[in-house]
Amino acid sequence: MTTTLPLGLTVTARVPASSANLGPGFDTLGIALGLYDEIRVTTTASGLSIHVEGEGAEDVPWGPSHLVVRAIERGLEAAGVWADGLDVVCSNVIPHSRGLGSSASAVVGGLAAANGLAAKLDPAFALTDQQLVQLSSEFEGHPDNASASVLGGAVVSWSEPASDSGAQRIYSAVRLPVHPDIHVVALVPAERSSTSHTRGLLPELVPHRDAAFNVSRSALAVVALTQRPDLLIPATEDMLHQGQRSSALPAATKWITALRSRGIAAVLSGAGPTVLALCVAPFPADLKEQASSEGIRVLELDVADGVCTS
Amino acid sequence: MTTTLPLGLTVTARVPASSANLGPGFDTLGIALGLYDEIRVTTTASGLSIHVEGEGAEDVPWGPSHLVVRAIERGLEAAGVWADGLDVVCSNVIPHSRGLGSSASAVVGGLAAANGLAAKLDPAFALTDQQLVQLSSEFEGHPDNASASVLGGAVVSWSEPASDSGAQRIYSAVRLPVHPDIHVVALVPAERSSTSHTRGLLPELVPHRDAAFNVSRSALAVVALTQRPDLLIPATEDMLHQGQRSSALPAATKWITALRSRGIAAVLSGAGPTVLALCVAPFPADLKEQASSEGIRVLELDVADGVCTS
Repeated sequence: MTTTLPLGLTVTARVPASSANLGPGFDTLGIALGLYDEIRVTTTASGLSIHVEGEGAEDVPWGPSHLVVRAIERGLEAAGVWADGLDVVCSNVIPHSRGLGSSASAVVGGLAAANGLAAKLDPAFALTDQQLVQLSSEFEGHPDNASASVLGGAVVSWSEPASDSGAQRIYSAVRLPVHPDIHVVALVPAERSSTSHTRGLLPELVPHRDAAFNVSRSALAVVALTQRPDLLIPATEDMLHQGQRSSALPAATKWITALRSRGIAAVLSGAGPTVLALCVAPFPADLKEQASSEGIRVLELDVADGVCTS
Repeated sequence: MTTTLPLGLTVTARVPASSANLGPGFDTLGIALGLYDEIRVTTTASGLSIHVEGEGAEDVPWGPSHLVVRAIERGLEAAGVWADGLDVVCSNVIPHSRGLGSSASAVVGGLAAANGLAAKLDPAFALTDQQLVQLSSEFEGHPDNASASVLGGAVVSWSEPASDSGAQRIYSAVRLPVHPDIHVVALVPAERSSTSHTRGLLPELVPHRDAAFNVSRSALAVVALTQRPDLLIPATEDMLHQGQRSSALPAATKWITALRSRGIAAVLSGAGPTVLALCVAPFPADLKEQASSEGIRVLELDVADGVCTS
């Protein structure tokens, strides 16, 4: 049975950006970044009103196909509630198509907003974090960005086939507490990138030794992120995707090489073009200046907690 | 300058067995097992006397080529000391050629014994754990078993090219504290296995998706081993080596399947044929009985500390 929400109920979800892969952790490791989109949802008598401010205000598709709206609808359905009408205001800060998980943030924000409305009606309607990981991952098929935005901190995510074949895959994630010495700097270029394009650059087959290399470094990454930031350089090496994508991402590749030669654990953020630096020392002023001179925004960010609603 | 050890100096190294891979962590994850070889070394006036008791007493090659002796010599050299003669007594318990790291244990034990002699002369001669990881890994080329026997607990090990090309690779490892709810059961068959044979079964190339699968599960294995034993089943899944070796290891494969279907995180121990079960509940009596009836020894083991000398 579906319960209809009363009119005038309002909730705001604040959802962090995220970075996936972190070098070796292809499609599994993620980290939540202190750069937030806000989604305010109010129940109305009928219809759908949606207003987008900030990043992507001009180019996000309008109407019910909008990713946030689809996520809100899915979240209401999963929580077992419905609304006759919705007023949605998206205040977007997370850059789009830069490898900072903006789509996953939109989905997580929409689901969390819906969940927040349901929980205001009755806390018994509230979805668990694992349900939010599942629902948000289903939208994109990869839980790394989505679960970072849900859980916060760094995450290890994975998926399993459902026990009944044909059913949706089961997505899971655990949050890792990030060592307090680690802070994050994102180098965000003006140019956009397409994940589907750069994913197409990955080979079907890889050498077994390269697979073993990443197996080793992704295990080490968990240790480095939580306990041993002094090991971040070896722990962020990768043989499975960054080199393969480098031809499409010459600027990011140049920056990763330059930063690593300075002892800074730099990796491709998701499928790029943003470069993420996991730092244990202040980011060098000369590199900051050089990046700015190349039109690259240098964002010094906190590791974020997961999505929250108020 | 090399210092010669005085006559009659004696040391005993007690070195644990180990299990490598732990499912997804091919060539990187290892765990030290509470099954110990002891190596007693005494300095003498000249010559080499070696006596082996227990496991492998009949079939280990004698003389200076003996792995333990080679390791003792290497350890003395690294510590900057020498002995005019040595009396070596090996009391072996760790089964050979079963995937329990007996060769790595022999090397680590020999190195540790040499190091213990040097340290008795002067603590300033003592090698660090990282030096022991390096020296022991050089003997076999893979640090997973060796570093488990050096450091104890579970380990993440990795290697890097030396900065000056042509030089020896640099081997490193970190110890993970194993969650106290986890205990280990080894199912050790009577038959031996050859690592070089079963390694030859591994393909040169693997699907990128299988590499990504193990990347995810090896990261998860670190979390499960240290914090979340409830996740051991997904955290010990593998696509990179166990299936590929199954044709050569039908009994191990059958047991892994049977144990996992009972909710026990069973994996191939190294290259087999031993099956290692990472347990959070008592090992079922019926399975223990069935294994015994098939000639399989069922060893309930503690997670061990690293090699020690006295």
